[in-house]
Amino acid sequence: MAKQAKQEFVQHITPREENFSQWYTDVVRMAELMDYTPVRGCMALKPYGNRIWELIREELDRRFRDTGHENVSMPMLIPESLLLKEAEHVEGFAPEVAWVTQGGGETLPERLAIRPTSETMFCTMFAQWVQSWRDLPMKYNQWCSVMRWEKTTRPFLRTAEFWWQEGHTVHATAEEAQEETLLMLEVYRSFCEDVLSIPVFSGQKSEKEKFAGARATYSVEAMMQDGKALQAGTSHNFGTNFSVPFEIRYQNREGQLEYCHETSWGMSTRLIGAIIMAHGDERGLKLPPGVAPIQAVILPIAAHKGGVMEKCAEARDRLKAAGVRVRLDDRDNVSPGWKFNEWELKGVPLRLEIGPRDIENGVASYMRRDTFEKGTLPLEGLAEGVTALLEDIRRGMFRIADAFRLSRTQDVRTWEELGEQVSRGYARAMWCGKRECEDKIKDAFSATSRNMPFDQTPFADSCVCCGEPADKVMYFAKAY
Amino acid sequence: MAKQAKQEFVQHITPREENFSQWYTDVVRMAELMDYTPVRGCMALKPYGNRIWELIREELDRRFRDTGHENVSMPMLIPESLLLKEAEHVEGFAPEVAWVTQGGGETLPERLAIRPTSETMFCTMFAQWVQSWRDLPMKYNQWCSVMRWEKTTRPFLRTAEFWWQEGHTVHATAEEAQEETLLMLEVYRSFCEDVLSIPVFSGQKSEKEKFAGARATYSVEAMMQDGKALQAGTSHNFGTNFSVPFEIRYQNREGQLEYCHETSWGMSTRLIGAIIMAHGDERGLKLPPGVAPIQAVILPIAAHKGGVMEKCAEARDRLKAAGVRVRLDDRDNVSPGWKFNEWELKGVPLRLEIGPRDIENGVASYMRRDTFEKGTLPLEGLAEGVTALLEDIRRGMFRIADAFRLSRTQDVRTWEELGEQVSRGYARAMWCGKRECEDKIKDAFSATSRNMPFDQTPFADSCVCCGEPADKVMYFAKAY
Repeated sequence: MAKQAKQEFVQHITPREENFSQWYTDVVRMAELMDYTPVRGCMALKPYGNRIWELIREELDRRFRDTGHENVSMPMLIPESLLLKEAEHVEGFAPEVAWVTQGGGETLPERLAIRPTSETMFCTMFAQWVQSWRDLPMKYNQWCSVMRWEKTTRPFLRTAEFWWQEGHTVHATAEEAQEETLLMLEVYRSFCEDVLSIPVFSGQKSEKEKFAGARATYSVEAMMQDGKALQAGTSHNFGTNFSVPFEIRYQNREGQLEYCHETSWGMSTRLIGAIIMAHGDERGLKLPPGVAPIQAVILPIAAHKGGVMEKCAEARDRLKAAGVRVRLDDRDNVSPGWKFNEWELKGVPLRLEIGPRDIENGVASYMRRDTFEKGTLPLEGLAEGVTALLEDIRRGMFRIADAFRLSRTQDVRTWEELGEQVSRGYARAMWCGKRECEDKIKDAFSATSRNMPFDQTPFADSCVCCGEPADKVMYFAKAY
Repeated sequence: MAKQAKQEFVQHITPREENFSQWYTDVVRMAELMDYTPVRGCMALKPYGNRIWELIREELDRRFRDTGHENVSMPMLIPESLLLKEAEHVEGFAPEVAWVTQGGGETLPERLAIRPTSETMFCTMFAQWVQSWRDLPMKYNQWCSVMRWEKTTRPFLRTAEFWWQEGHTVHATAEEAQEETLLMLEVYRSFCEDVLSIPVFSGQKSEKEKFAGARATYSVEAMMQDGKALQAGTSHNFGTNFSVPFEIRYQNREGQLEYCHETSWGMSTRLIGAIIMAHGDERGLKLPPGVAPIQAVILPIAAHKGGVMEKCAEARDRLKAAGVRVRLDDRDNVSPGWKFNEWELKGVPLRLEIGPRDIENGVASYMRRDTFEKGTLPLEGLAEGVTALLEDIRRGMFRIADAFRLSRTQDVRTWEELGEQVSRGYARAMWCGKRECEDKIKDAFSATSRNMPFDQTPFADSCVCCGEPADKVMYFAKAY
């Protein structure tokens, strides 16, 4: 993109207060995360956006490995007959499936779905792979893209094709399956909070909002800066819902055949949308250091002066050796001010400047992207200083997001309070558990039940909607 | 899989000499690399096979980065109108395309192909992304799966869906595009030889065998143990073949619009088939250390004796800390002999045994999978010893494969020699350059032109087929 055009872009990010949705679109495009393609609702991930996804993937993958999971790759196509085996599941997904009907110049005898999710394929293979209790647990995951023919789409938040991971596990007992479901929910919570610096509410979904085919669905729910909820990850306990129709059985230690208990769990490129909307500001992206393609950018000041470029290159090499993702921006056809704008727009957590005066003082000047705070770091031991600052930025970003979330979360006791609170954030309410109340709340306020926190201590005794006795604590919010 | 069943499997690998094709299938299944699925021609990569692919991916990805490439992700669907834009390209791929015709419960206005390859999608996006000489070169790559509706399929070698990487680059000049094409060919050669220990012939494809839409295609060709060729990677120079129909132009330094020059290059899960057939033996897989999910396995001998398990665990921890992919096989329900068989079948490069006598002598006993050579390594400094042995195995596997390849490659001067030589390996022949001769050779011997080496010094002056004057040196072979 030509210099002139970019300068204009930087100046034209719509303010969040003016139009949050337009602000989001501006940031996505200007930070060069993705682009639209000629296929309706399908995006192309550009290098910067794709790299964020790769870093998310690496961080999650390490956690999956550490909790005993192995990666596999399943076919992207699923025969219609498999999709039909579990009634609730097909009902949930069939309306948004893309169908392959022709291949190799011929009409196929059976339609093949591009996977909207892969439970039915995993179950088919598990039925072959699981024989005895010795084979269990079987804990697999795959990284792939899936396809859901959505009517309205938005970059990262809702696209026809999206990239994700889907974990699928098989267990001998109901207890183990439940343990796995909650373990992965906790992996997701910790990943959101400790790596992405996004605080989340962990809890259980209502019957209405659970995954098609699950016995129980759990989620981690984040809050965006417009007060809306974003479901960042889900973990499902299927019990034997799939193992019965797919006949996934194992021989127990006593030689008897028993049905297996299964789980699945997933996180997707939605997370990039969550990062943008949880942290971004008027200058653009603000990336948590753990998934920032460039964690620190070095800008030479008065680069033509003797020794400046050498010091900058030396600093880059040291940071690189210490494992910091660093970029030395040595372009001489744009001004430092131009570079400031560009790297702020791209959300680089830390900017370092090194000029003749800095060298004289034996320091690098820095600016933190999270707080705009400026300071200096000794060039001696620069890597330690930068690493410590990045860690501080990670914590700081969480604190800011958490304070915002708490300021926009409130207990509500009346219908009016509920309506008011969901217009600004999360409402914690007592709920009777009936679907009609969820429907009524959605009709009235466009808000949905998000999840039930694990702490179910009641703070009132009647349903916020119908006034009947209620013993469930539920978060309600408008959601992406 | 139950103990009994596995024992039988190990005993039933078909000998290579008896039936190479059945030997291959046996190894693929018994080493648990993949499984067949209910979708015709589509495979599931099991954890062990998938991990080999992940390691191939990591190694290649590092090399792509080091040569200045960035990863992106493109949509898996391609509208028919895009596929039709380049005539030769569509002619080459249309017959084996899988078509999506329905989505979200409706018939689509235009058929969408599941990508058989992504030139047309990349070109569409490049046309938007490339404006000026400042944007060039643009060097992208993507990791994904693609779909080609093949009539007959074989695990890893030819499947409807396969996993691969496809690099796509845009350049200002023809010279730069040619340089990139040859650079990536060299990356492929070095990867095959230095990481996979598979020697290859690098060279240029004939007009008949080049990629649909390319000006020139280059390949690296490996030799399997049955003497057949396997194309391990290809690198294409498109010139302006795609940039003209897709209107990919840039403004040069003088302000004039010029067409861009493009390349693409790819390697796929075929490589796993190549590893099996280049190195495997009667006991199963033989994995090059660079892509072995487990590089060294530690087996406790007389594990119940005091100190044995502790020493084994200590050895594992040390190897792990040194970056060796190590597994301590502490199962107590199978015998050491059983474990020997299993890890040989799975191709683990190095087996370590630690028992009371070893501990007494301060050593670990080892067996190399490549040569079955046995010896001991001091426990003191075990990591260094193991690392050095793995490096020696990598080199040794290359030497063995290279000696085999050379013994099965020969210059031929007559039609009879050609026929005889392609029944056992590669024939290097003089060729006039005419397609009719390639066709005739294929009809007579089922052999195809593989590639023309860069050293084109003639060793005869008439075509091996028609006898007319010939100035081209060409490798012919039967191929997978």
